[in-house]
Amino acid sequence: MATIKDVAERAGVALGTASRVLSGSTQTSPDSRARVLAAAAELNYIANGPARALRRARTDVLGLLVSDIRNPFFSELAHAAETEAMRRGYTVILANANEDEAQADEYLRIFAGQRIDGLLLSPQGPLSPRLTSLLASGMPVVLLNRRVAGLDAPLFSTDNAQGVGLVLDWLQAGGHRDVAFVGGPTAMSTGAERLAAYLAGRESHGISTDDALIDSGDFLAGGAAAAIARILDRGVRPTAVFGANGPTTLGVVRGLRERLGVEAASRIEVVSFDNLDWFEFATPPISAVRNDAATIGRLGVAGLIGLIEGRDVASERIETTFVDRRNV
Amino acid sequence: MATIKDVAERAGVALGTASRVLSGSTQTSPDSRARVLAAAAELNYIANGPARALRRARTDVLGLLVSDIRNPFFSELAHAAETEAMRRGYTVILANANEDEAQADEYLRIFAGQRIDGLLLSPQGPLSPRLTSLLASGMPVVLLNRRVAGLDAPLFSTDNAQGVGLVLDWLQAGGHRDVAFVGGPTAMSTGAERLAAYLAGRESHGISTDDALIDSGDFLAGGAAAAIARILDRGVRPTAVFGANGPTTLGVVRGLRERLGVEAASRIEVVSFDNLDWFEFATPPISAVRNDAATIGRLGVAGLIGLIEGRDVASERIETTFVDRRNV
Repeated sequence: MATIKDVAERAGVALGTASRVLSGSTQTSPDSRARVLAAAAELNYIANGPARALRRARTDVLGLLVSDIRNPFFSELAHAAETEAMRRGYTVILANANEDEAQADEYLRIFAGQRIDGLLLSPQGPLSPRLTSLLASGMPVVLLNRRVAGLDAPLFSTDNAQGVGLVLDWLQAGGHRDVAFVGGPTAMSTGAERLAAYLAGRESHGISTDDALIDSGDFLAGGAAAAIARILDRGVRPTAVFGANGPTTLGVVRGLRERLGVEAASRIEVVSFDNLDWFEFATPPISAVRNDAATIGRLGVAGLIGLIEGRDVASERIETTFVDRRNV
Repeated sequence: MATIKDVAERAGVALGTASRVLSGSTQTSPDSRARVLAAAAELNYIANGPARALRRARTDVLGLLVSDIRNPFFSELAHAAETEAMRRGYTVILANANEDEAQADEYLRIFAGQRIDGLLLSPQGPLSPRLTSLLASGMPVVLLNRRVAGLDAPLFSTDNAQGVGLVLDWLQAGGHRDVAFVGGPTAMSTGAERLAAYLAGRESHGISTDDALIDSGDFLAGGAAAAIARILDRGVRPTAVFGANGPTTLGVVRGLRERLGVEAASRIEVVSFDNLDWFEFATPPISAVRNDAATIGRLGVAGLIGLIEGRDVASERIETTFVDRRNV
C-alpha cells in the first residue's frame, strides 16, 4: 500500500506539504494541492476517512436518527442497533431529533455530508425536502417504528394494533368500564395507530365510549400530565388509565398524584404502552405492553445492510408481549 | 463557486465521470480520478462532506462518546450537549461504549476517520493506544465526568465528594447507623471518588464502620442487585442503602424486594447518587443527589469549542444539589 512518503515523492513536494494537503489544511497552494491529490489518486493512497470515502463507495458507517434519546424505548433501540451493526462490521453514529422536525432535518443534512452508507430513521413528521433529496441521492433508508406518508422505504415497527388489543383484554379482565386514554400526537403513525385501535376496540371490551375520557399529549411526560389533568377537569373519574408510551405513563402517574393525592391515585390502575424499569415499583404496579425496541433496532440494521448490498427488503411488524403486574 | 461541470471541463472528462469520481465511486480509471481530483483542487470545488473536509480544516461536527446511553445521566448529558452545540453552529454525533473498553476504542477509530473537529469523551478505562494516538494527532479532547490517569485534558465532572457529603448529612439527620453502600467499579474515577468520600465521612456522621455493609457492582442494575444480595448474605441488616448511581439504585431496590419481600423492603430507606424520574413513586420515595448532567454536557461543549478555537480551557467541578423526599 502506498504511504504518504510515496505520495510526496510522486507529487514532487515535501512530506509536510503532502501531509497538510491530505489532512485537509488550507495552508497549501492550489498547485501543490492539485499535485498531491493527483499523486494520491494514482497511487490509490488511503489516508483518513474523507480521503478514503472519496475513493471507495463504502464508509461502513450507518446513521441513526432517533426521535428522543431520553425515551428508554429509543435508547434501548439505539443500543441494539449499535450492537448488531458492530457484529456485522458496521458502526452507527447517532443523532437525536428531540421530537423536533427542524432538528431532524439539520441532522439529515449532516449525515448526507458525512457520507454514511445508509440511514435508520425514526421520523418526526411528514416528508421534508431534505429527506426527499436524501432519498433521491440514492441513500438507502429504513424507517423505524414510525411511517412517513409518501415515503416508500422498509418499515420496522411495533404492531400497535396488536399491542393495544392486549391492553383492552387486560382492562376487560379487570372489570374496568371508565378508562381514560392519554395518547400521543396523531400526526405520528404510532400516535394515530394506538388511538385508532383503542377507539375501535373499547366498546366490544365493555369500556365506556364517553370521549371525555380521551385526550392526547406530546409523547413526553409534561404533555401527558396536562392531558390527564384536562380529563379529570371534565368531571369524569376513571378507574384505570392507559398511557400510550413510556414518558406518557410517567406524566399520567405524576398528574394523578398531583390532582388526586397519593392515596386516591393509588386506587387507579395504570397500564402503559412501553414497559419501563420502574413499573414494578409503582403502587399499584403498572402492567405494560413490552414494545420490543431491541428487535426493531436489530431488524432495522439487518434490513438496511440488505438495502446497501442491493437486496430486496420487506417491512416487518414486530409483535408485542404483555407484562401483567396486577396480581404480583 | 465552481460547479461540477467546471470540474469536468477542466479535467477534460464527461460530466458523469466527474460525478462518479467526486462521489467516491471506484468505477473510474486511475487516470480520470487523478485528473478530476486535480481539477477540483485547482478550482476549489466543494462537493460533499469528505471532499469539503479535504480542503478545509473544520467540519463543525463534534464527537461524543458516552459510557452507557441507556443510563439517563448520559442520555440527559447527550441531549444537553447536542442542544448547546447546535446553538453554537456545531452538531454532535454520538457513540455508545456500553461501559466497554473495546467498543469505546472502536468508536475512537471511527471518529478519527470521520474527521470530527473535537471529541467529548466519557472514558471507560485507562489511556488506550488509540486514545493516545488521537491526542497525538492534535485532536481537541475534553473529558466528561470521568478522568483518565495520564491524560491531561480539561475535565467537566460532578463534584463527587460534595454530593456524597449531602447524602451523609441526610443519613445522619435520619438517625441511620447501619447503612449499606453499593458502589461502582473503583477503576473509574466516579466509582473510586464516591466510595472514598463515603468511607472518609461515615464515622463522623455516626454511621457504622463495619465493612460487611460495603460492596460494589458494575454501575448497572444487574451487578448492583447481586451486590446488595451479597451484603444481606453476610447477615447485616441495614436500615438504609446508598446506591452510587441511578442504575445501581434500580438494582438495589429490585434486590431488596427479591430478598426481603416488598413489605420488609419498604421499611428500608434508599438514597441515590443520580436523581431518576421514578424515585418520587417508590415506597418510600427515594431521596437523591441531583447530578447535573445537563450542565456537564453544556460546559463540556463550550470547553471543547474553546479548545478548537485555540483558547485555554480549565477543568470544572459541577456542584450537586439534593432532593429530599423523606417527608413528602
